[in-house]
Amino acid sequence: MPNTYHLDLQPIGKRINVPEGTNLLDACQQAGVELVAVCGGAGVCGTCRVRLLKGKLTDHSLTELDELTNAERTKGIRQACQAEVLSDATIEILPESLSAPQRLSIEGRENDFEWERSVIETYDIKVEPATLTDLRPDTTRILDTLTAQPTKVGFANVGATSVADGNLVFDSEAVKFLAPLLRSNDWSARVVIRNENEVVAFLPPETPVFGLAVDIGTTKVAAYLVDLDSGETVAKSGAMNPQIAYGEDIISRIRYINDHPEDGLKTLQARLIETLNNLIDELSKEAKIKREQIVEAVIVGNTAMHHIFAGLPVKQLGEAPYIATVGEALSIKARDLGLKIADGATVYLPPNIAGFVGADHVSMLVGAGLDDTEETVMALDIGTNTEISLYHKGRHWATSCPSGPAFEGAHIEDGMRAAPGAVERVRIEGDELKVHTIGNADAVGICGSGILDAIAECLKAGLLLPRGAFAGTHPRLRGSGSAAEFVLAPASRSGTGRDVRVTRKDVNEIQLAKGAVRAGAEVLLEKAGIQAADLDQVIIAGAFGTYLDLDSAIAIGMLPRTERTRYQQIGNAAGTGARRMLVSLDQREIAESIARHVEFVELAKHPSFTKIYSQALLLQS
Amino acid sequence: MPNTYHLDLQPIGKRINVPEGTNLLDACQQAGVELVAVCGGAGVCGTCRVRLLKGKLTDHSLTELDELTNAERTKGIRQACQAEVLSDATIEILPESLSAPQRLSIEGRENDFEWERSVIETYDIKVEPATLTDLRPDTTRILDTLTAQPTKVGFANVGATSVADGNLVFDSEAVKFLAPLLRSNDWSARVVIRNENEVVAFLPPETPVFGLAVDIGTTKVAAYLVDLDSGETVAKSGAMNPQIAYGEDIISRIRYINDHPEDGLKTLQARLIETLNNLIDELSKEAKIKREQIVEAVIVGNTAMHHIFAGLPVKQLGEAPYIATVGEALSIKARDLGLKIADGATVYLPPNIAGFVGADHVSMLVGAGLDDTEETVMALDIGTNTEISLYHKGRHWATSCPSGPAFEGAHIEDGMRAAPGAVERVRIEGDELKVHTIGNADAVGICGSGILDAIAECLKAGLLLPRGAFAGTHPRLRGSGSAAEFVLAPASRSGTGRDVRVTRKDVNEIQLAKGAVRAGAEVLLEKAGIQAADLDQVIIAGAFGTYLDLDSAIAIGMLPRTERTRYQQIGNAAGTGARRMLVSLDQREIAESIARHVEFVELAKHPSFTKIYSQALLLQS
Repeated sequence: MPNTYHLDLQPIGKRINVPEGTNLLDACQQAGVELVAVCGGAGVCGTCRVRLLKGKLTDHSLTELDELTNAERTKGIRQACQAEVLSDATIEILPESLSAPQRLSIEGRENDFEWERSVIETYDIKVEPATLTDLRPDTTRILDTLTAQPTKVGFANVGATSVADGNLVFDSEAVKFLAPLLRSNDWSARVVIRNENEVVAFLPPETPVFGLAVDIGTTKVAAYLVDLDSGETVAKSGAMNPQIAYGEDIISRIRYINDHPEDGLKTLQARLIETLNNLIDELSKEAKIKREQIVEAVIVGNTAMHHIFAGLPVKQLGEAPYIATVGEALSIKARDLGLKIADGATVYLPPNIAGFVGADHVSMLVGAGLDDTEETVMALDIGTNTEISLYHKGRHWATSCPSGPAFEGAHIEDGMRAAPGAVERVRIEGDELKVHTIGNADAVGICGSGILDAIAECLKAGLLLPRGAFAGTHPRLRGSGSAAEFVLAPASRSGTGRDVRVTRKDVNEIQLAKGAVRAGAEVLLEKAGIQAADLDQVIIAGAFGTYLDLDSAIAIGMLPRTERTRYQQIGNAAGTGARRMLVSLDQREIAESIARHVEFVELAKHPSFTKIYSQALLLQS
Repeated sequence: MPNTYHLDLQPIGKRINVPEGTNLLDACQQAGVELVAVCGGAGVCGTCRVRLLKGKLTDHSLTELDELTNAERTKGIRQACQAEVLSDATIEILPESLSAPQRLSIEGRENDFEWERSVIETYDIKVEPATLTDLRPDTTRILDTLTAQPTKVGFANVGATSVADGNLVFDSEAVKFLAPLLRSNDWSARVVIRNENEVVAFLPPETPVFGLAVDIGTTKVAAYLVDLDSGETVAKSGAMNPQIAYGEDIISRIRYINDHPEDGLKTLQARLIETLNNLIDELSKEAKIKREQIVEAVIVGNTAMHHIFAGLPVKQLGEAPYIATVGEALSIKARDLGLKIADGATVYLPPNIAGFVGADHVSMLVGAGLDDTEETVMALDIGTNTEISLYHKGRHWATSCPSGPAFEGAHIEDGMRAAPGAVERVRIEGDELKVHTIGNADAVGICGSGILDAIAECLKAGLLLPRGAFAGTHPRLRGSGSAAEFVLAPASRSGTGRDVRVTRKDVNEIQLAKGAVRAGAEVLLEKAGIQAADLDQVIIAGAFGTYLDLDSAIAIGMLPRTERTRYQQIGNAAGTGARRMLVSLDQREIAESIARHVEFVELAKHPSFTKIYSQALLLQS
């Protein structure tokens, strides 16, 4: 009997056990992961490229020595069809090799708001030409003209401010463009001013300028290109967070960095920047603009993503008491990060609240427009880590619950991310079972919203008890006690040739996850001295929150119990918040004020947390 | 007869003609340039290294293939003893190969002034440790502590300001040090704040901090390490400007950059930064400090040096009407320049006035403390380009005169820079001649102050007429008419085996140079409607101005004619000004105010310039 090895296929998040010597392309196909593999495994098309991240494969075949460059081989690039598995291994499937696109969470409310003070303002000016009797330096000409004739062009879609005279500074990279620009544009230029005090770009007159908003999730990255004049999103795109290859969750990435003190942080930062630069390329092509026109960026992410993106140390973030080193908003020149937008552009990182409540939560609150709400509102960003805010009578509490990766399909026996072939909807109608998969592909596994549905439906059908044990009878319910499992897709109809099931263990994992969310919500209610019924609104944001079935989530008791009409799913509000902060100084001030005034609640320290949590574990609304 | 080739030996500025096939070490020795050459030309010591910048030498010898790395050979490094001259060539003698040090202009007034508002202030603070009940981010701890207890440590040697609460921003590189620093120093740190609003460094408590002031001359670079608490200079050093190898004067360097659009600017910038980094190393070692302790820099230079240092385009600076692209003061992060001081440190470049009146002139005026003078003062910075300022009744005029490189020894037949072996003092006592050379070496050539002396002495002895013709008789005066020459060191006693002389042509070169200076001075006097006699002070600054014999300069009519006691030589005042601006915000404001309020006078446009200039050419006081 050959050894059996555990293969971890990223960024899909699909795991499979295979015998030693299994061909890697076969293994991927068995796992239901569709690689391009144009030539069918003959090794000549080079379309099934993967990267070996951990573990051992057979040596490069002659075909690979031929097809792959030295640099590629050094990086661990392999052709899946040419490699066999020799140990437990982690494999990253390169984006171009995936036949079906990942589902990306880039939808969210548009920037349908007005603002007063723009982050970026532009002035189209014409200066006096230099002559033998007018020897002023170029920058002095610019300042003199700006002060003399406030010909502001944009951007503030309400009101207008004039350029603060005398207090302008010039970005040292932006100013390099000035001399040739003036001389090739008949002494005219568009002057791009940031924060009312810094010239960050010189462009030919009337060149439209854009901003980049990015939401860096632990799993996915969403990027938006925004017209800074109108505030409209002109292009959007998403990608998997390439750091997944170094650890699925925050803690394992921090561990990777701690284990590689020399270059761990740099590696993870570089991979992310590389992905962002690819997205910038993609968005620029779609909008037909040049990178020089992207003059500002706002990047949001949880505290760990924020720190890694900015190259900040994360050791203290990975051990109790889990402290963010930077709380306040941070502005970094894009060039310091290697981000390929305008040379003088700045990246604004909104503030973090705590180690586990980051700038993405702040951005979500900005995106949901909750800063000056007079209603009692709870807002939840559900994910591997769930952040919850509660607004009540002018106060604002926030907390963080370690809901774990079950909602992402991890720790679930047949779990996977929301990728093609993942079961995402389940309905039990008598003995019948209706199952919907992403992309209508043959079922390969279950994603978070699918397992939530399956549990809620089993509960309704009496096939599950509140404590998580299967009960009753159904054609799809097999085994008993801790071995009981509910089959969503039998081997004969699955994409892997094996059953796709929900096990008793899976149900317990979801209980732990949803229990954490519910407990967090209840603790905040108790802190505010109110009941769930007092909530005017419950807002569900974030990637998972977009796709989950609200009724299922309520049915299994993940959310506080109030009227169905008060719940609202708002999509990627963090992305919306980032886009607002991209155009508006006021929105940035709101973000900074949120971080200053929020009262952070440490769950574990709350006196009745244990009682609340054990109650929250039950499958009941 | 073999061909004769012209060798240009840099950074000494010594030129020599040699027959084809001359050994390069021999050629250097004939030119009086002392290379180390420990092994006497056997090729084994590697101490006579030079770099071929232009022209052709014989191929690498086997010894060189052995002794030099590939990288060195690619850069043009040769062992002088192993190479023979095959064409006109420019050779850079590497600093380590020069046996005698260059004379560097690093002396100047000390920072003996008091100031109110410091550029850099430091706070030693101890924050509350992070605990499970105190989860504030590190930066928030810092801000809260700074706001709560204004325990400022330094630096303002008069008065004190407190930290502006709430408006502090964190440099994105500096903040990377915070988390580990707090955790390894018992939650204490020294917080280094710039301009009252930016945290630029975190250091262990009580770590002294320093600043770097640099005066980048076209020929020489002077660097000062300043204790930011006391304002005292703790170490100083100088070096040749390595850009000399690419062009002796500004115009030829701009031409080099124009001729190499791909990398010309980058190359010249990189060579300069490399030299500055070597100086930083040297100063740090001398003062026994780490580069992380150097948290601010001020760099001054003429407009071209300023632009090249900052990587700004110089094309428009090299063609009429010679426009500076940046006039206003510029702050650049040291990391953007590759300057190896603290990661968060900033480089402040004071403002330029015009294409040929740069930040170094502004700095000289700051260093001389002329901003609020109530006297009538003329200040001259004499060099290849001479800048002159005139203060009178609250107004300030400045002009620029193209005095040319004659004062640097260029365009003079036996001219050279102020290096060992250069004649720098000449006295005629009857038939006797007393000559003093730098380093008391055998005479190799004449530097600027030497030729000024020689001309003044010949004039006094009646051997020269005001129009520049030799006359009378003297044992050292040879030939007649345009072939007349005055021998300072005969071949038998020179270091080159040839005569060292002043020719009729040399005298004319000096007339042109000193005429330009004098004409500039006279035009400014006319502009102000005053006479030379009205001047309360005439200040001579700069490298050449430090070493020239004032009586000689007055005798040949280089300076406006007023009482001898009103003249003052103040050394490298630009370096002094840079050191003042390094510590004091007020001094920076003075510099910026000078640049805003000065009235620039374009000599060529002045109606009576031609008349004034032709008069100024005469050798008479």
